[in-house]
Amino acid sequence: MSINTFGHLFRVTTWGESHGPALGATVDGCPPGVPVDAAMIQHWLDRRKPGTSRYTTQRQEPDAVRILSGVFEGQTTGTPVQLMIENTDQRSKDYSDIMEKFRPGHADITYWQKYGIRDYRGGGRSSARETAARVAAGGLARAALATLAPDLQITGYMTRIGPQEIDRERFDWDTITQNPFWCPDAQAAEDWATYMKALRKSGNSVGAVVEVVARGVPAGLGAPVYGKLDTDLAAAMMSINAVKGVEIGEGMGAAMLTGEDNADEIFMGNDGRPVFSSNHSGGILGGISTGQDVVVRFAVKPTSSILKTRQTITKSGEAAEIITKGRHDPCVGIRAVPVGEAMMACVLLDHILLNRGQIGGAVGETRGRIG
Amino acid sequence: MSINTFGHLFRVTTWGESHGPALGATVDGCPPGVPVDAAMIQHWLDRRKPGTSRYTTQRQEPDAVRILSGVFEGQTTGTPVQLMIENTDQRSKDYSDIMEKFRPGHADITYWQKYGIRDYRGGGRSSARETAARVAAGGLARAALATLAPDLQITGYMTRIGPQEIDRERFDWDTITQNPFWCPDAQAAEDWATYMKALRKSGNSVGAVVEVVARGVPAGLGAPVYGKLDTDLAAAMMSINAVKGVEIGEGMGAAMLTGEDNADEIFMGNDGRPVFSSNHSGGILGGISTGQDVVVRFAVKPTSSILKTRQTITKSGEAAEIITKGRHDPCVGIRAVPVGEAMMACVLLDHILLNRGQIGGAVGETRGRIG
Amino acid sequence: MSINTFGHLFRVTTWGESHGPALGATVDGCPPGVPVDAAMIQHWLDRRKPGTSRYTTQRQEPDAVRILSGVFEGQTTGTPVQLMIENTDQRSKDYSDIMEKFRPGHADITYWQKYGIRDYRGGGRSSARETAARVAAGGLARAALATLAPDLQITGYMTRIGPQEIDRERFDWDTITQNPFWCPDAQAAEDWATYMKALRKSGNSVGAVVEVVARGVPAGLGAPVYGKLDTDLAAAMMSINAVKGVEIGEGMGAAMLTGEDNADEIFMGNDGRPVFSSNHSGGILGGISTGQDVVVRFAVKPTSSILKTRQTITKSGEAAEIITKGRHDPCVGIRAVPVGEAMMACVLLDHILLNRGQIGGAVGETRGRIG
Amino acid sequence: MSINTFGHLFRVTTWGESHGPALGATVDGCPPGVPVDAAMIQHWLDRRKPGTSRYTTQRQEPDAVRILSGVFEGQTTGTPVQLMIENTDQRSKDYSDIMEKFRPGHADITYWQKYGIRDYRGGGRSSARETAARVAAGGLARAALATLAPDLQITGYMTRIGPQEIDRERFDWDTITQNPFWCPDAQAAEDWATYMKALRKSGNSVGAVVEVVARGVPAGLGAPVYGKLDTDLAAAMMSINAVKGVEIGEGMGAAMLTGEDNADEIFMGNDGRPVFSSNHSGGILGGISTGQDVVVRFAVKPTSSILKTRQTITKSGEAAEIITKGRHDPCVGIRAVPVGEAMMACVLLDHILLNRGQIGGAVGETRGRIG
Repeated sequence: MSINTFGHLFRVTTWGESHGPALGATVDGCPPGVPVDAAMIQHWLDRRKPGTSRYTTQRQEPDAVRILSGVFEGQTTGTPVQLMIENTDQRSKDYSDIMEKFRPGHADITYWQKYGIRDYRGGGRSSARETAARVAAGGLARAALATLAPDLQITGYMTRIGPQEIDRERFDWDTITQNPFWCPDAQAAEDWATYMKALRKSGNSVGAVVEVVARGVPAGLGAPVYGKLDTDLAAAMMSINAVKGVEIGEGMGAAMLTGEDNADEIFMGNDGRPVFSSNHSGGILGGISTGQDVVVRFAVKPTSSILKTRQTITKSGEAAEIITKGRHDPCVGIRAVPVGEAMMACVLLDHILLNRGQIGGAVGETRGRIG
Repeated sequence: MSINTFGHLFRVTTWGESHGPALGATVDGCPPGVPVDAAMIQHWLDRRKPGTSRYTTQRQEPDAVRILSGVFEGQTTGTPVQLMIENTDQRSKDYSDIMEKFRPGHADITYWQKYGIRDYRGGGRSSARETAARVAAGGLARAALATLAPDLQITGYMTRIGPQEIDRERFDWDTITQNPFWCPDAQAAEDWATYMKALRKSGNSVGAVVEVVARGVPAGLGAPVYGKLDTDLAAAMMSINAVKGVEIGEGMGAAMLTGEDNADEIFMGNDGRPVFSSNHSGGILGGISTGQDVVVRFAVKPTSSILKTRQTITKSGEAAEIITKGRHDPCVGIRAVPVGEAMMACVLLDHILLNRGQIGGAVGETRGRIG
Repeated sequence: MSINTFGHLFRVTTWGESHGPALGATVDGCPPGVPVDAAMIQHWLDRRKPGTSRYTTQRQEPDAVRILSGVFEGQTTGTPVQLMIENTDQRSKDYSDIMEKFRPGHADITYWQKYGIRDYRGGGRSSARETAARVAAGGLARAALATLAPDLQITGYMTRIGPQEIDRERFDWDTITQNPFWCPDAQAAEDWATYMKALRKSGNSVGAVVEVVARGVPAGLGAPVYGKLDTDLAAAMMSINAVKGVEIGEGMGAAMLTGEDNADEIFMGNDGRPVFSSNHSGGILGGISTGQDVVVRFAVKPTSSILKTRQTITKSGEAAEIITKGRHDPCVGIRAVPVGEAMMACVLLDHILLNRGQIGGAVGETRGRIG
Repeated sequence: MSINTFGHLFRVTTWGESHGPALGATVDGCPPGVPVDAAMIQHWLDRRKPGTSRYTTQRQEPDAVRILSGVFEGQTTGTPVQLMIENTDQRSKDYSDIMEKFRPGHADITYWQKYGIRDYRGGGRSSARETAARVAAGGLARAALATLAPDLQITGYMTRIGPQEIDRERFDWDTITQNPFWCPDAQAAEDWATYMKALRKSGNSVGAVVEVVARGVPAGLGAPVYGKLDTDLAAAMMSINAVKGVEIGEGMGAAMLTGEDNADEIFMGNDGRPVFSSNHSGGILGGISTGQDVVVRFAVKPTSSILKTRQTITKSGEAAEIITKGRHDPCVGIRAVPVGEAMMACVLLDHILLNRGQIGGAVGETRGRIG
């Protein structure tokens, strides 16, 4: 149980290292009859692909996915779906000078301590390349959601790079795909470009905040008390490389509110469903979805592979200085956006399937009626 | 799979409702030979007990735990340990006026929607009373840790109530147990007392931030990539009632740092183990413990049961006003401190056992040597 | 993970020892809205109760079950159901002479080796008393099945005691409850009574074969390839104390047939469903139910606690002779009948819930139509 | 949760269909530092390979395994190991005449009913080709066992083909690999050859019994009460295609014994470990290994794809006759021998790892001393 699997009914096991022959996702529990082909999954992988802008790693990987099992004549069969991505750009020589030294802030040292193995080729299993497999699995989850819950929409974007946050007043959904930062605020995107240009020149990196919103989520998803929807989202996001904090709705800011301010008041909507005056809860109460937008936010720390000199030690315990050359993301948060979306898709599909098992309800059906 | 279990090898299933005959924890996977009795577990329950100060609910519950199985002649046998707490103060009449109305910000409405059951007696399963079972399980975990990892120390405290944060300069471990807020800053504790007094009078409630630190954690704990130590801690804390955000080390603040600032530089310590210049990582890199203090922080929203009038609807969909009388915590974060500690204890014990299964190492042993 | 839980979505954790204060089952995943009370579960426990005939142990236990959680106003809530049975007849003095000696054929020695704990009070966790908790959980499963799959009928009976097998020509469902052996063949029941009388007098014990049949099982249950319906039934039955073999349909005898003889030919029935010329398959093909009767059979070895002198050793490794006095079942297979039924009920309910999660089908619905 | 995974800590997920591009096993939880390469795993696959004698299917598949992840510089890293086997001989035209008809005794009909998908290409996921992935995973488990438990030896053989059983008096370990039937009785092997020749000519098939023995198993393995060693072995073997019965030690025959006869008497051995006068228990008491040989036996039904005419129906519900041409095993039990061995290897490794997590013991260590 080295736990490379997540999900309860929609179970995703990712495998593969940064510089091995291939990596991928073994997905078990995808419902049968879902129309899907490699191109549909490739669409999402292309969003995460390295080398697409000057703000991400210059590693060139086509990240072409192959479906090796579980799909027959254009639809899923209910058996495991194997999604494989071959590694084609494995220039391991780039990493030869860090074979002995541990990068501060990197998993080098803990993997060595735990496993006694040093896969110096680009971080091995601890590399963010593993997230390509998540995005592939998320693509399959999206295909299943398109069938089961066609009204559901999942969108990720960045709300902060280092010191610079977006202005919510300027928020525009359409802007998100029109800049290399998945930024919903056109002005902020320009500021970030300036900031990042200077940062790259200095060889430094920076952190970021990513927000993922799911609209059209049916009420009733979530398994209290240890498989709550927010619990599973927190685990999903925290498991992404470099994430250090996760928030639902109001998040850490909820600590600053009074009960009076934090209450999302309830009214009856015209469609016979409850509506809320606000969404401090992030669409989740008691671990169960309310039918409002589900809002998750997570902080991505700056990548530890930088051109700045840092103090460290070698495997033999000697003091050393380290500068990490190679092709690294100056703001790894950018490429975390499609990953966060993928995790949201997997978690929501999982809970839709769970809900069927728990209460027998089709998607959007709940057992308790209001009105 | 309604998922009332957490943990991989140390598996805790909590059961019971706020106003049923009893609640408890069924704990499977506790190692054999651990010295434990009811008094040792009661010690931790007493810390969480309601009615101990004017800042917590006035519900009077002895919360006396009984060990019904898994312990023989003063030590665990390796079989399931059943920890039962009888509910003695079940004044359900207090809740009669909320049988039809949904409390804004409360799980009333989502439980009703999902399950079609309204357990109006104090929130039923969604009540924070469930956390008594967690604290009992945490007490057992502490007993096992005392045997397996005697150097390990777990301490929780509050760092914020509403607008008022502690001053880290005044941090003092000994102060924590000397005020009713588990506050490590004596000055802040006084300020909070003043603040809370006014808040209670107004019938309002407020949020809080709790921090839990584990000192003496061996390096090498954590199962990348979906059972990372931080992933499991995030899930554990987010599953606690009313929690809306979880941070590891630098947390959401990591988004504001550069790679240069965020790097915890590495040196060799005198005891032949690596030491770090700082702990932005919160003691976890790549999901595996470094040997530094493990630092987790979570935000608890204000309780939704307040004496302020709020707009809501009834089960039949009619608009209504609601004021929640009864015995509620004005700052539920206070009683979340022992709960956070308990979750930390369970997660660390679980990963110590996992590590044995994964790499065969005794506690504190790792496979990779440095130096 | 000492694995005292079984089931995928309907998850049963049993706890408790032979001579502790209580034992029980923590059941998670029971659907909400199932009408149930303690009396409905007690009905099944009474079938297993010791001391009901001269052919079972003379231990006197009322085995009265209490529901401590998960049921509100007469129906399940979807939260964990705690079923507790207090141990009232704990005469541990009966066992004092076996504190040091290991009974041949008993788990005494392996529990000691593994755990280093000797719970000499009647076998502790290894006692067949644990099966009372299974029967309680099975009672809850039966209540849920009565709602979800009202046509389903589960019946267990004995087909062999030692050398004496039933004659299938004389098989009569109504006879089963009319003798103390759950024997469907009235003549065999008489022969068994004579045989058992002599056996008890001699202080010996004997093995048995139990068969459990489920009628009215919907087609489509089973999760290939490692949660096949027959796989889960085999595990469920083999986990019962003293079981040494499990068969589905033709069982071990399938090895002696040709493909021509073993084929259950298929025809269309009048109700538009397939019918089969025979049931060699035991109602399961490829791990999925066909809609025919599901037929499971298991062998129970003779109890190892006998009045015959056997050679053994003590904890200190010295040779010794042992005779086990106390109140033991001369044919523990008899009381295994309700246990086998309970396991069948739990497994079928679990797969009905799983099927909903997997393919979204209500009970009895499948995705593929014939005709 | 369509459950294509088995194992607790050593977790194997198999994927792939009979006629898809590839199949394989995703293995999570293999300890780090195990020396292994593709050739070591290929060794075991070659034993199961089709087309090696006239008694198995004439399908020609090299079944060449590739290790895509989890192994670096000749040893496992503790991360998931992906074992892929490409399908090269996918003559799906052979199956065109059975696209509409269901084969009696085959999973065709239940897969169709459950999933609404008909993968007519050789049975799709229900094909015994899936077992190649199990053998690959078993090869990895063997490599790990060679490191962790070098004294452990796992050997499978056949004890029966149809009406013809081996004579235990002629049992010879060395004979097993000297005939195409894995038969330990040279005389029986000759008789079987004669029998099989006639059977093949007639286009019929036949069942078989396979026995797998593990020698050198340490005492103390097994997780009572639902992860008992025998429980897990029963599930493992029953999950193999066409298996209808599983026995441990005395098996179904235990029903015919008295307690006196069934008791394996205990003595102290010269090496300070207990020895037993017999092994009715099959090396397992109370679900925990005793240190004796672990003995498992399972019955494999005759393959349902035969040249004999049988009555069946089509997908549209019309009556039809069916003869299955193609390249099928006349006695699929023969190729089940290496599969049974593989399952034994996986289960034993899993329990060795579990035991470390449960009691902290290295392999062969137990907590309770005798003598």
